[in-house]
Amino acid sequence: MESAVIYGKNAVIEALEAGEREFNKILISQTSRADVKIERIKELAREQGIIFQFVAVQKLNQLVPDGRHQGVIAQISPVRYMDLEDFIQNIGGNIVILDGVEDSHNVGAIIRTAVCAGIRGIILPSRRGVLINSTVEKTSAGAVNHISIIKTNSLVGAVQKLKENNYWVIASDHHAKDNYYDIDYSDMNFALIMGAEHAGISKSLLKLADFKIKIPMLTNFNSLNVSNAAAIILFESVREKVRREA
Amino acid sequence: MESAVIYGKNAVIEALEAGEREFNKILISQTSRADVKIERIKELAREQGIIFQFVAVQKLNQLVPDGRHQGVIAQISPVRYMDLEDFIQNIGGNIVILDGVEDSHNVGAIIRTAVCAGIRGIILPSRRGVLINSTVEKTSAGAVNHISIIKTNSLVGAVQKLKENNYWVIASDHHAKDNYYDIDYSDMNFALIMGAEHAGISKSLLKLADFKIKIPMLTNFNSLNVSNAAAIILFESVREKVRREA
Repeated sequence: MESAVIYGKNAVIEALEAGEREFNKILISQTSRADVKIERIKELAREQGIIFQFVAVQKLNQLVPDGRHQGVIAQISPVRYMDLEDFIQNIGGNIVILDGVEDSHNVGAIIRTAVCAGIRGIILPSRRGVLINSTVEKTSAGAVNHISIIKTNSLVGAVQKLKENNYWVIASDHHAKDNYYDIDYSDMNFALIMGAEHAGISKSLLKLADFKIKIPMLTNFNSLNVSNAAAIILFESVREKVRREA
Repeated sequence: MESAVIYGKNAVIEALEAGEREFNKILISQTSRADVKIERIKELAREQGIIFQFVAVQKLNQLVPDGRHQGVIAQISPVRYMDLEDFIQNIGGNIVILDGVEDSHNVGAIIRTAVCAGIRGIILPSRRGVLINSTVEKTSAGAVNHISIIKTNSLVGAVQKLKENNYWVIASDHHAKDNYYDIDYSDMNFALIMGAEHAGISKSLLKLADFKIKIPMLTNFNSLNVSNAAAIILFESVREKVRREA
């Protein structure tokens, strides 16, 4: 089968527990100390009839060169990308759109935080920015298995379709007049667009936004990292929802 | 002089503009295309009488092996660490305490966001977690030059000293009962403690906290990345402050 590689004890446990992906096999370093997490991986693999092999650590280093595998690598089926139409018809819920975010750590961190904030889908453009790779999976701490990953050839087309389906489109833009906490997120289905690290959101998408919001800062210094900015906005939506329901 | 290395066009420009650090020299790749940022670096270096040299890209690759130098590396004086006593007497303002955060990217992202949120000092333990290194400097986008970096042998001692000086100590702890937005941050000098990625905050520090707060989540999935969690809490303090002043 076409396959992806995930690594790190937590990421492998997370993927086994989520049950979303097909496992080819799990490789464990012969020199790994037996700990609670390795035991948990073996237990889950046995339950699910998945092969695990003990191999020389050099073999693992070949597959994940930066040595961050923590003694465990799994070969699994790639993340399934979903069609936006399919998502709208069968899943639904709030969405984050990444307009060309280039750093895999940022994409992974945003997906992790989005899942914690109850977001149901992430839209990525097919040809700019990163798609789901091993670093994204690792940084997401397995969150890629708990959210629909939607890939599209045209972000403009995707945003238009969302608007036709009663989504409100929010663009994070540091030139905006309104602050992010001036919106009532709990009252709508929203799609939040976050722009690329340096370029921000492209003009054609900005034009389609129903709301443009900024995060006010207390110093003139530079700007926020895109994953931190996403976290601040998404958890404002959580705060409002929890407060309203209390 | 003892020296540190920073790299990347933005980080070098930021450090030149901040004027906090002594520059030994700036190395620029011979194969760098002349762009606005490289020109800005040369201009600032000329103004400040700093040597810049054009070198083979291989030389840069030796100094920053992962190839993220973007054609520019500067050798500069290390970050100056400050004493807590000195900070309290001469600087003052809100503080973030990192209790053993281990990932350089997280430390850098937290420092960047802290500066944006008007935080004046970061406290790091001397012997656990990371101190300021090249990756922290890069990830902070130069924010290390806009905040006091305080190093201490005893976080417990530091927290006690802060309390004696009328700081309110807030611990981010996912077992807490109160939510992070239930505190009035605008009404006090605070020190926010963020724990290590896996272990959280040590018990001896938790005991000293005046407030323990959690970030409520909309799904049971895992937990937030520590830098995103810090961003959410710090920008709630900004939101409250901006609203109160409006």
